Amino acid sequence: MERTVIVELEKVRLKNPILIEGLPGIGLVGKIAADHLIAELKAKKIAELYSPHFPHQVLMQKNGVMRMIKNRFYAVRGKKQDLLVLVGDVQAVTSEGQYEITGKILDYAQKKGAKFIITLGGYGTGKVQEKPRVFGIASHKELVEPHKKYGIIFGESKGSIIGAAGLLLGLGKIRNMRGICLMGETHGSFVDPRSAQQVLEVLCRMLEIKVDVRKLDARAKESEQFAKKIEKEAMAAKGMSPAQPSGHDLSYIR
Amino acid sequence: MERTVIVELEKVRLKNPILIEGLPGIGLVGKIAADHLIAELKAKKIAELYSPHFPHQVLMQKNGVMRMIKNRFYAVRGKKQDLLVLVGDVQAVTSEGQYEITGKILDYAQKKGAKFIITLGGYGTGKVQEKPRVFGIASHKELVEPHKKYGIIFGESKGSIIGAAGLLLGLGKIRNMRGICLMGETHGSFVDPRSAQQVLEVLCRMLEIKVDVRKLDARAKESEQFAKKIEKEAMAAKGMSPAQPSGHDLSYIR
Amino acid sequence: MERTVIVELEKVRLKNPILIEGLPGIGLVGKIAADHLIAELKAKKIAELYSPHFPHQVLMQKNGVMRMIKNRFYAVRGKKQDLLVLVGDVQAVTSEGQYEITGKILDYAQKKGAKFIITLGGYGTGKVQEKPRVFGIASHKELVEPHKKYGIIFGESKGSIIGAAGLLLGLGKIRNMRGICLMGETHGSFVDPRSAQQVLEVLCRMLEIKVDVRKLDARAKESEQFAKKIEKEAMAAKGMSPAQPSGHDLSYIR
Amino acid sequence: MERTVIVELEKVRLKNPILIEGLPGIGLVGKIAADHLIAELKAKKIAELYSPHFPHQVLMQKNGVMRMIKNRFYAVRGKKQDLLVLVGDVQAVTSEGQYEITGKILDYAQKKGAKFIITLGGYGTGKVQEKPRVFGIASHKELVEPHKKYGIIFGESKGSIIGAAGLLLGLGKIRNMRGICLMGETHGSFVDPRSAQQVLEVLCRMLEIKVDVRKLDARAKESEQFAKKIEKEAMAAKGMSPAQPSGHDLSYIR
Repeated sequence: MERTVIVELEKVRLKNPILIEGLPGIGLVGKIAADHLIAELKAKKIAELYSPHFPHQVLMQKNGVMRMIKNRFYAVRGKKQDLLVLVGDVQAVTSEGQYEITGKILDYAQKKGAKFIITLGGYGTGKVQEKPRVFGIASHKELVEPHKKYGIIFGESKGSIIGAAGLLLGLGKIRNMRGICLMGETHGSFVDPRSAQQVLEVLCRMLEIKVDVRKLDARAKESEQFAKKIEKEAMAAKGMSPAQPSGHDLSYIR
Repeated sequence: MERTVIVELEKVRLKNPILIEGLPGIGLVGKIAADHLIAELKAKKIAELYSPHFPHQVLMQKNGVMRMIKNRFYAVRGKKQDLLVLVGDVQAVTSEGQYEITGKILDYAQKKGAKFIITLGGYGTGKVQEKPRVFGIASHKELVEPHKKYGIIFGESKGSIIGAAGLLLGLGKIRNMRGICLMGETHGSFVDPRSAQQVLEVLCRMLEIKVDVRKLDARAKESEQFAKKIEKEAMAAKGMSPAQPSGHDLSYIR
Repeated sequence: MERTVIVELEKVRLKNPILIEGLPGIGLVGKIAADHLIAELKAKKIAELYSPHFPHQVLMQKNGVMRMIKNRFYAVRGKKQDLLVLVGDVQAVTSEGQYEITGKILDYAQKKGAKFIITLGGYGTGKVQEKPRVFGIASHKELVEPHKKYGIIFGESKGSIIGAAGLLLGLGKIRNMRGICLMGETHGSFVDPRSAQQVLEVLCRMLEIKVDVRKLDARAKESEQFAKKIEKEAMAAKGMSPAQPSGHDLSYIR
Repeated sequence: MERTVIVELEKVRLKNPILIEGLPGIGLVGKIAADHLIAELKAKKIAELYSPHFPHQVLMQKNGVMRMIKNRFYAVRGKKQDLLVLVGDVQAVTSEGQYEITGKILDYAQKKGAKFIITLGGYGTGKVQEKPRVFGIASHKELVEPHKKYGIIFGESKGSIIGAAGLLLGLGKIRNMRGICLMGETHGSFVDPRSAQQVLEVLCRMLEIKVDVRKLDARAKESEQFAKKIEKEAMAAKGMSPAQPSGHDLSYIR
């Protein structure tokens, strides 16, 4: 496998879908929000993305079955429009990998009819906030004003957006897609379910949907454990000569 | 040569072959088991795999002839089904390389008719075991129960499987192939012929074949020396400016 | 997106255009000169270049709108011949990236009819000069003598020209294009608008155009701030796991 | 330019040519021998090789003209057979680059009719020898015996041959080409014209030609200076942000 591939599990026709991205990133804010969204809305997995830019390892599950490291697409039925939600284990670590994967994601989203993108992430401030704000960055100027009513703060975030959350908007814009990146204020050094909740609430207002947040903390804990595991494994893999299984003990040594 | 290539030395028709992989990895467990298997079963070399993701050097042999760094496919005739055994000097060091090479291996195995894969490796625990256990990870849930009778322990190994042993199952699954990874318990810091023997015995039970293990220790010693040599050379190569021959003295300096 | 792409914003016919390059480099000499040139000549942006060899991040602007990291082509109408000016945020960091991007730039320039190239840069000496000299390097020997009359000093610069300023001439020569690299003497550790001004003055003599330099210092300050920001962001991105937004605070930590 | 390219300067028909390689490597032994050979035999440059796997910089020459970093092919007319001599500034630093470039070299050599390859290099021993021996490694076993009469020592060199000197034989063998690698014994830390002379003398015996070696020392000195310059420039380039000219002063700082 020399290129990123998307394997469609089920051919589903989507009604004017919005692409929503929540991959691992700062404070796992985007990942927690998106994982919770698909769980609560009983979303259906319709495609999987595999990439040579992901770590060259597979995960051992408790039931004795392995699974690939991957990203996944879920479909959610909506009233006016459907959702195409992208979640996953990792993001590519190199620029070349990120550009390739982001291009494939957009190819697929366009094939399913998506014209609008909402990416979810955290905005690191080095401070802990009682009630994290949600910052927004738009792909086009004319999107800024109409989106302020959802409680999104524009123009106060600085710097750059790293990875898929930014690149999906950037490469999407070249294809005439539009979109918003929602960033929950977060410290940056901790997993932050509270920030994820704020992002999710803004998202729900935008989409005119309701999502129960009672199980969000529990899911955040799972996400945290999984993210730590993946990171440790990837680290272990790099430190070792090209090899085979890394046991549980080894995987905690960096 | 810009891509991994497989050069077929002999066109052999295989009867429903099982792909068996034993490349270098933790404790050289998989490599020792597979190297011993092809030697004892008088397997026939039918193809060689070369890759730009292998080190850019060739090995000097005692007879004054060089040879490439490579992976090799061997054919073994069986009663019910044949074996296609993959062994080799190295694995790719990058994720991109591993994905590309694994894809090519599966292309070839499928061309030869393979539908089932058994990968061999070690499972590092940091402890020395009197009688190493053999852990298993399956590509599909329904394979777990029927394989317990061979003495494979499922569900007790954690973490991830790095390199070809895992990726062959993972990428194979996408192509509707099935498989099992057998991992012999091993310390992780030493070459472990005893663990390799346990893996080999489980494999023989699965395949309903017999393999004499008396020469296994001697072969393990050879494998160890060769693996150390390759690693030293590769290290030396990285530390040097793009260059030509590294002599024996130099190659021991890191 | 797996390869560098150039998106043409406007189909403009150019009259025998000269390609002028001023991307970030030593002392930002080339960038400042070219940025000032397009601002003063009210140049028109006609194309944008995006590359997977650029950092995998997008920039947040004050108005709440993101933009991609990119290079840009501007057209300037001249009397005898038009100008095609290339400016941008960054250069690729790898050799492979530089060769790919440079090839795409030349493809585009040739499509627009360009046969001559002028690249702008700094020449680091470790010293501060009252009046920086402008060194030149030509693609062809016969260009040296006729260009001395513009005040360009040939044969006194040593070493190599790194990045697009050199590679455009080198790869251009293979395509039978000709060109000159103008290098303003500069310390190397500071942004140097004075050196940029000298380069610009030589360029204006060559092109028989006039450019007001009064706002050059102010623009140099902007360029400096922007270049620092980009560099910090790229650094931050590398130190972080594949992630999402890096806030302003974080981006100052290396 | 996304791939290695060979630009043919002159279409020359060669008579059963032998490919001879002498690129930079240990002790510059191969480079000195090959550079001297083409100078003394008044060889004709017939092609140039450029690669994205070479450093992304161009060299400033004393006459004010730049030139690309490259490899070059020279043709020499012989009695029984012609020579196609490959020399150059650098070798690729990555494995992927070496495999790609070596493949392109073989493509070209085969197109010109070459079936036999002689690669030249040094064999590092960490010792200084009064009269360096010349070790040989053959692509095929049957070449060993007949070549001993030229004073080549087979079977006493160990380890691996790094870079083009080894890979040309290895990848050539896959294409049914044959060849010998000649390695002059050398310390490894110094440029070694004496070892180069021994290699050259063996080569002359093999080819039944005569080459005056009086100017070899002087040429070796030039090669040494040039190789140091290139290395310094490449180092400087890596330490710098993607940039433009590196001046002579800077280039001596590592």
